[in-house]
Amino acid sequence: MRPVRSRSKTTRPRASNSATISGRPIITLTSDFGLSDFYVAAMKAVLIRHAPEARLIDVTHQVPRHDILCGAITLERAVDGFLPGTVHLAVVDPGVGSQRRLIVAELHRQKIVCPDNGLITWAARLHGPAKMHEITWRPDKASDTFHGRDILAPVAGMLAAGHDLAKLARVIDDPILLNAAPADAKGRAGQIIQIDHFGNATTNIPHESLRSRSQVVVRVKGRAIGRLKRTYSDVAPGEPLALIGSSGLLELAIRDGSAADALNIRVGDEVVLR
Amino acid sequence: MRPVRSRSKTTRPRASNSATISGRPIITLTSDFGLSDFYVAAMKAVLIRHAPEARLIDVTHQVPRHDILCGAITLERAVDGFLPGTVHLAVVDPGVGSQRRLIVAELHRQKIVCPDNGLITWAARLHGPAKMHEITWRPDKASDTFHGRDILAPVAGMLAAGHDLAKLARVIDDPILLNAAPADAKGRAGQIIQIDHFGNATTNIPHESLRSRSQVVVRVKGRAIGRLKRTYSDVAPGEPLALIGSSGLLELAIRDGSAADALNIRVGDEVVLR
Amino acid sequence: MRPVRSRSKTTRPRASNSATISGRPIITLTSDFGLSDFYVAAMKAVLIRHAPEARLIDVTHQVPRHDILCGAITLERAVDGFLPGTVHLAVVDPGVGSQRRLIVAELHRQKIVCPDNGLITWAARLHGPAKMHEITWRPDKASDTFHGRDILAPVAGMLAAGHDLAKLARVIDDPILLNAAPADAKGRAGQIIQIDHFGNATTNIPHESLRSRSQVVVRVKGRAIGRLKRTYSDVAPGEPLALIGSSGLLELAIRDGSAADALNIRVGDEVVLR
Repeated sequence: MRPVRSRSKTTRPRASNSATISGRPIITLTSDFGLSDFYVAAMKAVLIRHAPEARLIDVTHQVPRHDILCGAITLERAVDGFLPGTVHLAVVDPGVGSQRRLIVAELHRQKIVCPDNGLITWAARLHGPAKMHEITWRPDKASDTFHGRDILAPVAGMLAAGHDLAKLARVIDDPILLNAAPADAKGRAGQIIQIDHFGNATTNIPHESLRSRSQVVVRVKGRAIGRLKRTYSDVAPGEPLALIGSSGLLELAIRDGSAADALNIRVGDEVVLR
Repeated sequence: MRPVRSRSKTTRPRASNSATISGRPIITLTSDFGLSDFYVAAMKAVLIRHAPEARLIDVTHQVPRHDILCGAITLERAVDGFLPGTVHLAVVDPGVGSQRRLIVAELHRQKIVCPDNGLITWAARLHGPAKMHEITWRPDKASDTFHGRDILAPVAGMLAAGHDLAKLARVIDDPILLNAAPADAKGRAGQIIQIDHFGNATTNIPHESLRSRSQVVVRVKGRAIGRLKRTYSDVAPGEPLALIGSSGLLELAIRDGSAADALNIRVGDEVVLR
Repeated sequence: MRPVRSRSKTTRPRASNSATISGRPIITLTSDFGLSDFYVAAMKAVLIRHAPEARLIDVTHQVPRHDILCGAITLERAVDGFLPGTVHLAVVDPGVGSQRRLIVAELHRQKIVCPDNGLITWAARLHGPAKMHEITWRPDKASDTFHGRDILAPVAGMLAAGHDLAKLARVIDDPILLNAAPADAKGRAGQIIQIDHFGNATTNIPHESLRSRSQVVVRVKGRAIGRLKRTYSDVAPGEPLALIGSSGLLELAIRDGSAADALNIRVGDEVVLR
């Protein structure tokens, strides 16, 4: 399994401090729970019991329901954005209560605590190699429908508080990875992997594979988007453009509009460069 | 007024520490304010003035507008999930500015600060007995339309900071409680009390009243759901099931789908066991 | 440019402490990023690298896409609600990557870090005079599409951590201000400036300009709303009313309903008093 892109180090500044910030561990949360129920706060209540000093940062709880691919891509962004020492709790878990495993992935000097259903895929590809563990710790009592609260959150909290991972999990070498298609090796073709709040469509084509900005012509759904631009305001309002997005990947957009709506783009659509 | 169910102690693990965490008081927030206006942050600004060390945890601000019953059920979940010492600020307040009282309920070694309009009902039933207080403290100036910011948040902040409740409120014994129907004493009938982000429908039937899993047959809106299952993956995708949800109550669900949509279930619908 | 209203000091209580709270700087966040992508957490990751002790408070991330006026009004509320020493990070930035400047506004003993596109307008009018600065600091590498993360967040973090503003920016005197119409000088006419989650419609008419409650008759879209009331429950459910909202401005509402929906009110609609 080839990485889709090497990690984009060129597009984001980094501060000099590289350890856990001011002694307070950071735990991020990513889920498909939405924001209208008690579920998110239920996990936070557990996290701060186990890691009273932890700083909790919501990534998003609006991953589309059971959309593991979207969750995986978002989780990779979190790994990319946070510092070594961070613990990421990610719960998109349609198989809760079944025999699916729960895992801890160590990569990029961070830890991800999540179900073993492919959520780890994107982060493992871009920030690997990852050391994988199956969680063996279990509480005295656990529900059959909310392992995010009953198993994953306690483990994430304990890890943030400095507990020894080896006492909570055992090493495995066969985590489930999604079979997401990597971009064409020469960066000549790829696909839409995510559509954001603004309707911008991110592809899996890394900026490193784009040799020359002046030569690129992007096509999606049979429509030519034109040569690569630098930023949205390089075209007139309402016009489509292709550019390198803030995560270092080729992105399709409409200035002051939604590319997803105007171009009828969906996740999985093919993008061709010439 | 009979409790609908005894508190479900069996489905959630608890950590051993039972005091305020690391000296930092916890304040949770529950409201129907939504997330697009300044209202939530306005309350937080006041809370941290009065309790600079407090940790603020959002439960939800997406209680449906003026839906006191939904707010009451969510608030009960927060009381159940957090540790002794927690202060809960809950604002679903259609009567703001009228003569309705503002109250502090002490129960389960936690405090709830909210309007006296029934919001306390569910928590009082499941975690009582509650000691009730009417807030007598008033600021020099208060708006007529945002007591959450002007009265409730300052009181919640002061309580979290250790102020004496007796100086802010006086004991009462007649709080307003919603007349929500309890489940049938034998657990043979009940109703839908909440529908979550996933479309799962929670009933007011506690797991303790279900004698034998193998005997239960659930019916809702004239449709048989079948015997009780353990978790979602016990049925095929798209199939309905009944199970004990993460809060210890009978729940109706569709695997990988929305029971609310597929079965046309609404809050208040009757559920029958046989 | 005349201020639309003088600052409403009468409707909100203030605590006595007026410095940065317990040594921990406060940073608020306002944007049009929504809550489903990694963008908000990306900024938070940067903020806490630069200001490890900072307390981060979300104002809202649901400013309508590219709606600078709405963002400006919300940002003013945040300035009004928080204490001296607070740093506000506000990102509604349709011109990202163009030649538009990035600024820091010092006003009301707080700092606002945002694009120079008018976002500062409302706060500057109501809490000025403002000292304006153009941000000259740049990271080694920055994306062309996410200056909120790459420039504004580092600057906000550094300011919260106590860095010298003079080393990050230079004084300017020509910030871009929106040409929003002020209310009629005598308070006889104004317009709807914001509609909240409840459908309440806020005008730009300050309560100070309303001489006598008993004399006021409000009209909007040709419909008479009636004399000014004190709070929602002063009318029957479903009835419209005019009142002074929690920010000290004339507001139109429907008791237990949405004025925006029922009266078909939109931002920009004229409101007349008689």
